[in-house]
Amino acid sequence: MGVGDDCALIRPNAGLELAVTTDMLVEGRHFLPGADARALGHKALAVNLSDLAAMGAAPRFALLCLGVPTADEHWLEAFAGGLFALADRYGVELVGGDTTRSPVRTIAVTAIGEVPAGVALFRGGARPGDDIWVSGELGGASLALMRPDIASAAARLHMPEPRVELGERLRGLAHAAIDVSDGLAGDLGHILERSRLGALVNYADLPRPAAFREIGDAQLEQDCVLSGGDDYELLFTAAAERRGELAALAAELALPLTRIGTMQAGEPRLVVLDDQGRPMPYRRGFDHFPTP
Amino acid sequence: MGVGDDCALIRPNAGLELAVTTDMLVEGRHFLPGADARALGHKALAVNLSDLAAMGAAPRFALLCLGVPTADEHWLEAFAGGLFALADRYGVELVGGDTTRSPVRTIAVTAIGEVPAGVALFRGGARPGDDIWVSGELGGASLALMRPDIASAAARLHMPEPRVELGERLRGLAHAAIDVSDGLAGDLGHILERSRLGALVNYADLPRPAAFREIGDAQLEQDCVLSGGDDYELLFTAAAERRGELAALAAELALPLTRIGTMQAGEPRLVVLDDQGRPMPYRRGFDHFPTP
Repeated sequence: MGVGDDCALIRPNAGLELAVTTDMLVEGRHFLPGADARALGHKALAVNLSDLAAMGAAPRFALLCLGVPTADEHWLEAFAGGLFALADRYGVELVGGDTTRSPVRTIAVTAIGEVPAGVALFRGGARPGDDIWVSGELGGASLALMRPDIASAAARLHMPEPRVELGERLRGLAHAAIDVSDGLAGDLGHILERSRLGALVNYADLPRPAAFREIGDAQLEQDCVLSGGDDYELLFTAAAERRGELAALAAELALPLTRIGTMQAGEPRLVVLDDQGRPMPYRRGFDHFPTP
Repeated sequence: MGVGDDCALIRPNAGLELAVTTDMLVEGRHFLPGADARALGHKALAVNLSDLAAMGAAPRFALLCLGVPTADEHWLEAFAGGLFALADRYGVELVGGDTTRSPVRTIAVTAIGEVPAGVALFRGGARPGDDIWVSGELGGASLALMRPDIASAAARLHMPEPRVELGERLRGLAHAAIDVSDGLAGDLGHILERSRLGALVNYADLPRPAAFREIGDAQLEQDCVLSGGDDYELLFTAAAERRGELAALAAELALPLTRIGTMQAGEPRLVVLDDQGRPMPYRRGFDHFPTP
């Protein structure tokens, strides 16, 4: 019912559950002082829509807390432009917020989505024998941080695309899901812990940007693809008999869905196999953005 | 359904609407670097519960984004202690959040409340002839900012008490409501604009801390009582025939409710009368917290 009173008032539709998530981005920590304002507006909402997608929720509403050092009209306009362009694309209504002064730019977005009762996706729903799938490509965002000269990777870092349609379509199809914000190893680790299962992943199967081939730095590639964050792809598990449906869905959404491994009964441990089928070492995650 | 997945999942109760609000507090802007952490945890949630109360909503859930320069265990524990003490008192569940590094402490809380469909209180519902009421006392918080030596006022600033029960009880009783966060003149102004009505307020009737009498500074008193913010009392209008009910409610809640004026047909203008019945000048609001 819109902005203007002390709160926004939401009339939930019958039979739906609400998914709620919040994320904070701080200048110098999550983005550089010179970051493009429009991209930042996009990203601040995108990371929250990605969280909703990971639960199979359709985004509906957002609230924005914004701290800025000065009332820079150009910056604010570009920031709002990026945020609203993404919001409009998915029918998300900005229903509340708070703007204040802050020594560094600070953005906290809360997003609210809807999902029919009982069909939300959780981290803990994986079953032994499930295929493990990931959307799009992994490692591009962290590559952009380490090699800002590679233009093709920069878009992945600065304008991540939340997999909103995919999240909704995975209802009833995936057993467990999460978005890849902290890196494949770390985020798959959350699924393993919650599902109390292990996983085998084939390193060679992990989808990655073509740029890595040209760079030819195996360690960098491995760090980015296995442990780099900020890609905001969906990582999910599904029964083997759903492979055909998932291939059809990938074609329909024009979004690659890649089968990267298998869930295993046993300890919640991730084993990554190299192209010889031997376990290879990996970092669970790494702090790729230096603390100021 | 709790924290831990990418989102919190809320199953709304049938026939209820959800009220959602968010507020950001920044060190140096809304609180001093040396501010008591426990009080800050209380206040960060309190200001949001006050927004819910102003719409007649019962608080249910909260999400917290917290930016801190260092992982100071003592500070975090005290902050969480203050926040949870208030949350527990009103059955508010913390269902999500994000903690990150930030050069200055930054707190963004989102609160979600419930209100039966159709009975939420708005700013725009006042009617000509309505009594104007305010809970508690006005001016204490801004007095504390200007005269930190007056201990009795400090609690009003640092540990504001959201009028949660009052807000819920005003459903079906008040015609319009708002919380006094920016000062009486400014916040009553919002009711006037939304309700398209004017108001007459008697300055002498405004409830205020006894400390002002001892200080004996008429201008300071006027600035604090009429224009000072951060008191988080509820300001509302109601029909004259509800006076008896409101007096009984004040007694039941052990919370003073004071009739301070009358809504008038006409321009959305606030006229404050002095004790001779003459219009007196006032500031709509003032920025009582110096920008660093």
